[in-house]
Amino acid sequence: MAGERARSLGKGSTSPGPVPEGLIRVYSMHFCPFAERTRLVLKAKGIKHEIINVNLKNKPDWLFEKNPFGLVPILETSKGQLIYESPITCEYLDEAYPGKKLLPADPYERAYQKMLLERFSKLPPLAFKHLLAVKNGEDSSAPKAEFSEKLGEFEEILAGRKTVFYGGDSVSMIDYMIWPWFERLEFFQLPDCLQHTPKLRQWVEAMKKDPAVKATMTDAQMLKGFFELYAKNSPEACDYGL
Amino acid sequence: MAGERARSLGKGSTSPGPVPEGLIRVYSMHFCPFAERTRLVLKAKGIKHEIINVNLKNKPDWLFEKNPFGLVPILETSKGQLIYESPITCEYLDEAYPGKKLLPADPYERAYQKMLLERFSKLPPLAFKHLLAVKNGEDSSAPKAEFSEKLGEFEEILAGRKTVFYGGDSVSMIDYMIWPWFERLEFFQLPDCLQHTPKLRQWVEAMKKDPAVKATMTDAQMLKGFFELYAKNSPEACDYGL
Repeated sequence: MAGERARSLGKGSTSPGPVPEGLIRVYSMHFCPFAERTRLVLKAKGIKHEIINVNLKNKPDWLFEKNPFGLVPILETSKGQLIYESPITCEYLDEAYPGKKLLPADPYERAYQKMLLERFSKLPPLAFKHLLAVKNGEDSSAPKAEFSEKLGEFEEILAGRKTVFYGGDSVSMIDYMIWPWFERLEFFQLPDCLQHTPKLRQWVEAMKKDPAVKATMTDAQMLKGFFELYAKNSPEACDYGL
Repeated sequence: MAGERARSLGKGSTSPGPVPEGLIRVYSMHFCPFAERTRLVLKAKGIKHEIINVNLKNKPDWLFEKNPFGLVPILETSKGQLIYESPITCEYLDEAYPGKKLLPADPYERAYQKMLLERFSKLPPLAFKHLLAVKNGEDSSAPKAEFSEKLGEFEEILAGRKTVFYGGDSVSMIDYMIWPWFERLEFFQLPDCLQHTPKLRQWVEAMKKDPAVKATMTDAQMLKGFFELYAKNSPEACDYGL
């Protein structure tokens, strides 16, 4: 039942029991970019965890008891504490567990990363809008132009920082927070958006060498197969290829 | 130019100069509930600050250099650092300044406050929708019912916690984050929403005794006068009664 590639739990499934001592559980969905944020942080910090995949196209009732929004990611501790919303789960993991701190210690640098995340939050809906337009054979130029423009801001920020990553010369929280959408640029049919953003291209290449990024990478063909079913509201979508 | 009740700076105004050493500046708007969050935290922690009011109906160009979203609150430090987005400004102040910590130290309790804030974030747009419907003589029952339902969740949470405030028996960050909308219930024409929420009514009464809350309170009649002009897009709105 548990595991990165385990089939998802859907409507009618039994709510998983308590989390064993010494472990943290993440409710995830194999293809979800938001849940990937949490999985990246779990990997980056080497936190012992179990993954339970949830069928988001046929949600179990117990999902809403764990998160009133009925979304993943959700963390569950052995004390029964529940934490949802991807940035909150990631910050929790960074604070609650020892090891490398992914958020900087300086209050302004912390705020800076959170502001970048807020700015980035306008991009995922645009990527999705673009994909849907392409899929439906509609004009996709407007969301693409808007996406590229916002991406240009992220190019400028990196050029201004003069560092490889957004928080300096090593990967930090903000890089993991935005990465899942860069991993999916081909899937969103937006790979050429990086043509005029050399700094971002370097960043993408540097990210691909990160061990946590390598460990959570999903093949573009798999994503495509997933989305074919997802767009049709198929209850099989979340288990594509698993 | 500076001060809580100073007239706002609008289009064509000169960008205020550097922030003097030993001070932090907040760009605010006298009636803005989001900026009130930051002002509450500044007061609660006794941080020496100056307030510059901004005309949000006739925005100065320099506003967008300080915050790409063109919104308040924005903090500016004497080092020229800029911090925007109300929850980020408040967390920054809590981390960067000594004195009473408004966010709990425990990682789960911190996450808990952030999740509550996320749940609360659905309420302000509903309150605004309700006010507009009433103002335009349209049917306001749907946003009112939805607002009341969500408020019911906050009643339940408080009842479940068995404490006076959301983070325990003294005021903490989450209370300040949600307070500005409770202060404005009459203004939003939603005061009777508290009829069936006795715990929330007790919380409101307890909040009204808090020194920071007392110091930032705005009269309901002032808010009404402001909104009359604001709804008409008047450039005088933000300076109503100042």
